[in-house]
Amino acid sequence: MIKVSVFYPNAANGRFDMPYYLNKHMPMVQQRLGTALKGVSVEHGLGGGQAGSPTSYLAMGHLLFDSVEAFQQAWGPHAEAIVGDVPNYTNTQPVIQVSEVKL
Amino acid sequence: MIKVSVFYPNAANGRFDMPYYLNKHMPMVQQRLGTALKGVSVEHGLGGGQAGSPTSYLAMGHLLFDSVEAFQQAWGPHAEAIVGDVPNYTNTQPVIQVSEVKL
Repeated sequence: MIKVSVFYPNAANGRFDMPYYLNKHMPMVQQRLGTALKGVSVEHGLGGGQAGSPTSYLAMGHLLFDSVEAFQQAWGPHAEAIVGDVPNYTNTQPVIQVSEVKL
Repeated sequence: MIKVSVFYPNAANGRFDMPYYLNKHMPMVQQRLGTALKGVSVEHGLGGGQAGSPTSYLAMGHLLFDSVEAFQQAWGPHAEAIVGDVPNYTNTQPVIQVSEVKL
């Protein structure tokens, strides 16, 4: 299993519309990616490790797939629509990481 | 539900011993935190969003708790033992983020 994580950095004047992300963007992503998408999770950043320290990311979204190949095949035809929706909920520059799920 | 994410940056000459992390560190964390710990996940970074681009993090570990207060109460008495084990599996400086699980 692999996880595609999208990190939205806590930049100065960073905006992230969590209701839009949860109610519009993620359902669209799920509909587009279909059965290749094995799971979804979303987190809202509260803070860093020390009390009162800033969060690294305003939000994170994670998508699970069986393999990197399954992700690429499912993502390719819909990349433009999915990426094109990003400015509707954030002005930050998302950072993407592909990981192998170990536990 | 809240998630405590520990990110291990992909630094120059960064070392991360995944077998130690999975077989020694995480079981110790689970034993120390007990029933306050509601879930655990671990990922190994493969790459960035573009083919061939570097991963942001060598590895990530995530711990689930019912609330920030439940995390702090469970973590406090064991922080020294848990943090003290970090040099046994990595030379990177972990970055911690506390997040609210939305989905």
